[in-house]
Amino acid sequence: MSFQNPVFIPGPTNIPEVIRKACDMPTLDHRSAEFRKIFDPAVAGVKKVLKTTSAEIVIFPASGTGGWEAAICNTLSPGDKVLAARHGMFSHRWIDLCQRHGLDVQVIEAGWGDGVPVDAYAKALRDDTDHKIKAVLATHNETATGVLSDIAQVRKALDAVNHPALFLVDGVSSIGSVDFQMDAWGVDVAVTGSQKGFMLPAGLAIVGVSQKALAATETAQLSRTFFDFNDMLKSYATGGYPYTPAVGLLNGLATAVDMLLEEGLDTVFARHHRIAEGVRRAVFAWGMTPCANSPELYSNTVTAIRVPEGFNATEIVTLAAKTYGIAFGVGLGEVAGKVFRIGHLGSMTDVMALSGIATAEMAMADLGYPITLGSGVAAAQDYYRSHGNATALAAE
Amino acid sequence: MSFQNPVFIPGPTNIPEVIRKACDMPTLDHRSAEFRKIFDPAVAGVKKVLKTTSAEIVIFPASGTGGWEAAICNTLSPGDKVLAARHGMFSHRWIDLCQRHGLDVQVIEAGWGDGVPVDAYAKALRDDTDHKIKAVLATHNETATGVLSDIAQVRKALDAVNHPALFLVDGVSSIGSVDFQMDAWGVDVAVTGSQKGFMLPAGLAIVGVSQKALAATETAQLSRTFFDFNDMLKSYATGGYPYTPAVGLLNGLATAVDMLLEEGLDTVFARHHRIAEGVRRAVFAWGMTPCANSPELYSNTVTAIRVPEGFNATEIVTLAAKTYGIAFGVGLGEVAGKVFRIGHLGSMTDVMALSGIATAEMAMADLGYPITLGSGVAAAQDYYRSHGNATALAAE
Amino acid sequence: MSFQNPVFIPGPTNIPEVIRKACDMPTLDHRSAEFRKIFDPAVAGVKKVLKTTSAEIVIFPASGTGGWEAAICNTLSPGDKVLAARHGMFSHRWIDLCQRHGLDVQVIEAGWGDGVPVDAYAKALRDDTDHKIKAVLATHNETATGVLSDIAQVRKALDAVNHPALFLVDGVSSIGSVDFQMDAWGVDVAVTGSQKGFMLPAGLAIVGVSQKALAATETAQLSRTFFDFNDMLKSYATGGYPYTPAVGLLNGLATAVDMLLEEGLDTVFARHHRIAEGVRRAVFAWGMTPCANSPELYSNTVTAIRVPEGFNATEIVTLAAKTYGIAFGVGLGEVAGKVFRIGHLGSMTDVMALSGIATAEMAMADLGYPITLGSGVAAAQDYYRSHGNATALAAE
Amino acid sequence: MSFQNPVFIPGPTNIPEVIRKACDMPTLDHRSAEFRKIFDPAVAGVKKVLKTTSAEIVIFPASGTGGWEAAICNTLSPGDKVLAARHGMFSHRWIDLCQRHGLDVQVIEAGWGDGVPVDAYAKALRDDTDHKIKAVLATHNETATGVLSDIAQVRKALDAVNHPALFLVDGVSSIGSVDFQMDAWGVDVAVTGSQKGFMLPAGLAIVGVSQKALAATETAQLSRTFFDFNDMLKSYATGGYPYTPAVGLLNGLATAVDMLLEEGLDTVFARHHRIAEGVRRAVFAWGMTPCANSPELYSNTVTAIRVPEGFNATEIVTLAAKTYGIAFGVGLGEVAGKVFRIGHLGSMTDVMALSGIATAEMAMADLGYPITLGSGVAAAQDYYRSHGNATALAAE
Repeated sequence: MSFQNPVFIPGPTNIPEVIRKACDMPTLDHRSAEFRKIFDPAVAGVKKVLKTTSAEIVIFPASGTGGWEAAICNTLSPGDKVLAARHGMFSHRWIDLCQRHGLDVQVIEAGWGDGVPVDAYAKALRDDTDHKIKAVLATHNETATGVLSDIAQVRKALDAVNHPALFLVDGVSSIGSVDFQMDAWGVDVAVTGSQKGFMLPAGLAIVGVSQKALAATETAQLSRTFFDFNDMLKSYATGGYPYTPAVGLLNGLATAVDMLLEEGLDTVFARHHRIAEGVRRAVFAWGMTPCANSPELYSNTVTAIRVPEGFNATEIVTLAAKTYGIAFGVGLGEVAGKVFRIGHLGSMTDVMALSGIATAEMAMADLGYPITLGSGVAAAQDYYRSHGNATALAAE
Repeated sequence: MSFQNPVFIPGPTNIPEVIRKACDMPTLDHRSAEFRKIFDPAVAGVKKVLKTTSAEIVIFPASGTGGWEAAICNTLSPGDKVLAARHGMFSHRWIDLCQRHGLDVQVIEAGWGDGVPVDAYAKALRDDTDHKIKAVLATHNETATGVLSDIAQVRKALDAVNHPALFLVDGVSSIGSVDFQMDAWGVDVAVTGSQKGFMLPAGLAIVGVSQKALAATETAQLSRTFFDFNDMLKSYATGGYPYTPAVGLLNGLATAVDMLLEEGLDTVFARHHRIAEGVRRAVFAWGMTPCANSPELYSNTVTAIRVPEGFNATEIVTLAAKTYGIAFGVGLGEVAGKVFRIGHLGSMTDVMALSGIATAEMAMADLGYPITLGSGVAAAQDYYRSHGNATALAAE
Repeated sequence: MSFQNPVFIPGPTNIPEVIRKACDMPTLDHRSAEFRKIFDPAVAGVKKVLKTTSAEIVIFPASGTGGWEAAICNTLSPGDKVLAARHGMFSHRWIDLCQRHGLDVQVIEAGWGDGVPVDAYAKALRDDTDHKIKAVLATHNETATGVLSDIAQVRKALDAVNHPALFLVDGVSSIGSVDFQMDAWGVDVAVTGSQKGFMLPAGLAIVGVSQKALAATETAQLSRTFFDFNDMLKSYATGGYPYTPAVGLLNGLATAVDMLLEEGLDTVFARHHRIAEGVRRAVFAWGMTPCANSPELYSNTVTAIRVPEGFNATEIVTLAAKTYGIAFGVGLGEVAGKVFRIGHLGSMTDVMALSGIATAEMAMADLGYPITLGSGVAAAQDYYRSHGNATALAAE
Repeated sequence: MSFQNPVFIPGPTNIPEVIRKACDMPTLDHRSAEFRKIFDPAVAGVKKVLKTTSAEIVIFPASGTGGWEAAICNTLSPGDKVLAARHGMFSHRWIDLCQRHGLDVQVIEAGWGDGVPVDAYAKALRDDTDHKIKAVLATHNETATGVLSDIAQVRKALDAVNHPALFLVDGVSSIGSVDFQMDAWGVDVAVTGSQKGFMLPAGLAIVGVSQKALAATETAQLSRTFFDFNDMLKSYATGGYPYTPAVGLLNGLATAVDMLLEEGLDTVFARHHRIAEGVRRAVFAWGMTPCANSPELYSNTVTAIRVPEGFNATEIVTLAAKTYGIAFGVGLGEVAGKVFRIGHLGSMTDVMALSGIATAEMAMADLGYPITLGSGVAAAQDYYRSHGNATALAAE
């Protein structure tokens, strides 16, 4: 196994040096006053990244999947109806999780390449005159298809009919790399993990909880202990934690939010836009297209690339790993074999992105794709050169 | 915050240098073949530490609390009756968790300082002729009181009446530092965490699951997704993981089991016995006693020390942290203020233990305890000198 | 400062993860038996890399400059005549060092872009019938110009006239990345540093010393203590070191030689040839040429690239650092402003090299060079694709 | 090899966590502007630790021995007369180094346990009416005997006769842990290393150079290149370095001086006094004595302990390493076998010191010494308790 090359999977992402060191901590007594010096700044920083002043932040030693589970278990009861769309592997999995916890999921099927179907959501909410729908679920960034949905529009659909349902949003592969406005969008539970935009190893489920969601915990009957919001918040209030926290990861999180805020969220988002746009220019230069069905859906954190008929996209991933020591993402579920994915979220520079594009070109050439070596690289270079300061993260 | 001194909390424990480095990994594609090279040896090693050949090992990115939750959610249904004893804070918390998940817990109250009340268990099982009790819970090592219970005797009580209940054991603060015989004791679910005997940071719930427990998952109705045994085992079978694993911690776990097995489990257990006995000799030299009510209950991983009437044991912990930069454990729950705890599990040497004992003496003297400086140290030194090779972990 | 991108300076080179960890050691008593377990394998491995069985290895906590000083101070006396060529900044500096130590240097001036002038050496040695020349100096790889000289031919020139002079070779930027045959080439003192082919941080001067050179120490009158070969070898014989060694770097060196030998020296050299050839293909695709005056002089560890008239090559380096966060090497001395340098020695993959080439293209385009974006990348990709397994270091 | 226990050798010392991380750096282009951001604060901090505003700081990638060599080679010429005392192994070695570099050393023999013989120095200087003595050498802290000499008195002896000789002082095992006043004491060259009071790994020779010493470089004829002060200072002036610097160690040095200055030099010195005094109380409790012949000579950085007749002190060191995994220092030269040494300089806490004292007691008991276990520990505990805040380094 070689660690000389960056990874281009859509998470876990490349970990900056300072975050590596922040996570790698000797044992600290988490019941001492020192713990708070780590935890409080981490929480304060996460609030800024989520753009919320009114929500509470709850952080579990778990994964994004645990965050999904926490979102529903703390706010809903068995048999509750929730509205969700299936348009990729991760929205599918959240639906599956809901069903396994006994929720009644009203599933709207959408294309794998489409965004959250706002019109269909609007209709469902309009039709739900007796407010059976207790929660609306949305996947901000479908990691499987590289589709970023418009969360504000879903909120508008709720507001249009004054629907009281909770609004639960999966921001796992968006938060920290693209804009997320918890308060402005009226998100009730926002879920993410440590290993994406926060540039940390996997191991933290980071959850924003609105006051409305907190109120819902009073009546929510789904069982939870490990994932209980109130146990967490009660402990936090005294500088504690209800069980043993992952102190090193929390210390890394405090460092990560510092890095993001020092670079400036707008600068971070602009960087991810620039890098992603370069990748897309490369894709078009190759004569291919993103899996996302229209430009306004293009994700700035991961690009799923449709390969020409007759080719198995998974072979690109296998060959790139074996021959060039580079990790891309395979297609999942409905788009397995049809797409491969270049992850460009988290800690990524233009130069790193170019090395990924160049490797994809070699791998495709090796597999007989009708590709001109250097064509995608040139398109990306051209874009990067003319679109502002490409220097690596200022704060690293 | 200073990291020059060791910690003496009963977990998280001191992390050896090589484990620190094993955990501190660059990002690795967990869908690549490399992941298996880390995961498989970790699982194989855990089996050896648990002394099981027939059980499956499931590892969650969570804490010991998550392991408890996994143990019940995968094997039981709402309303199921379980038998448990409350004799310390951690057995108490597991009971609480069960109740919050809708189980009907038959609680046997025991003294905080007593072990699992085997006779009471035996009676309850004998009385349960129609086998309403679906699971028996036992806390191998009560971290709050420093009490190690005899798990084999609980199994005997089950066997004596041929009771079919599952046997779920919390080995969080025992496994890896004292003997645990999953197969011989007929344990159906064994729960531990990474941050105790395995000498890792917190972040992994490590669970041994017997074939009988696996069979129980077929009918268990408690909801679970994040903590689902079968999702895990199905993924493992193909070298995968159902969501993003904590790769660095797993790599550290592979290293930790190597260290334990290279030192030799018997040698590890003997080392912990020697260190613990030295601490106890010190306690007696101070004219005090362990919280554990009889010698056969003395824990080799943590010693809770009863302080004389009129003193508040918590002040020792506060003063030791503030004045000497040393972390001990406070008393919890019923024994709050009455005991302080010296954790000596995980990565610990005789020399480290002596520094803890010496510090406790200074702190007690500072607080006006009738203590002779050096008395406990001398008692421990005497024991350490005459009881074999005290060299630090061979394999570090 | 960002550490996300690789460096392309011709040393210090990129440090592999495992070497980082090997160097980062807690304090170890260097007078204990443990030291030898680190030092002996390091020495044994260095011998293999130098391809010597008869020489001694001496390792100073110093830099390559210190190695040069050790080479002459241990073997020569004030006023001794030495033969040397100046054909780049580093051969120049060694001459300067000799002169400052009172040696009488017969300097042969050669072009900056030429190799060691073997014919001129042969003539000088032929003319030196009374053997006034006590040592012949040669720079294997001139880091300033990217020129690799033929050391075997210099040996032949010595042998042709049976000249008894010592043969001192600077292998600082060659050893470990290209072939070096200390015994076969009759090298008496071979000098390198830790921060080049050995992929370590700077801080070790690594010196191979032939038995003939050792014999010369008996009469050598130049003063030395810190750099004394015999003090070193006398201490090594008992597992010691004459003063405090840089234990962490030595531990890293032991790891580095393991990595090189596990990958296989031939494979390492082939990798560096492949990477370098790709860089050169890029240079030609840009319509430029290496500084090295003929193909047999092309260095596989660093390429100095002549830029077109009217451009200042140093600006490429400045802009690449500032705009793209990439470090190239500037031209030094006579070729300042005329060349920039891409270092590709040490820990380098094809993918990393492509990112350097792509960055150079962007920087040149930014500065108005008549360059086609992607042209160099395509030429390198084409070469890398068709020339064997490009996977990153196997052993990392 | 185990790294769980601290080391008690008188250097290299225990490395604090933050310094470990500061030293462990990815490759940085030392010709970039980033280098200055590391180097300049390191130099500025060293000046404060040396208490000099007028001297220059020169830092070599070498050891303390290299610092000695630099001190004489830059300021003296072959045949120059220097005044020195031999009262331990390290003063002996510096004399040896001078002699090997062709200096005429007027050696004053003193007891191994005595300090610099100020009266004998004064007489020699008084007698030297024609100022043949070009330099006076003094070893501030004799690491071999645990003797701290009064450097101010040596300056007074020079001033008393208006002697123009340079004043060269070895502060290797004193600087950073005990007071050193370069300007007030009129020291012309002060020498130390990274691995003692600066708490770093070995690898830097840190040298303070007065303007008078710098002026002496103009006429000094001893040869030097690697160790040339002027090459260094000329490079520093433009943010450079004359060859490849040890960037990681310099980054660690910048961190180390920050730590020392944040703790406060007076607090650091008080801490070392307290720790050392505790060790001495232990020694007296054992019925033994320090090697230093009188209390005003007692070193606060290392205690050499005379063992009773009939015992070989080296066996304590061997047994402590083998049985308890603790490193002490052996006696060297004239006091070999007669003393063992407990190093307590650098990063050390009261608690760590107690663990060393406790281990020495066990080792001596194991060897049949007439020692009461716990006696030394109790004496040290008593002193530590009553002498102020023993908390570990505030700034770590």
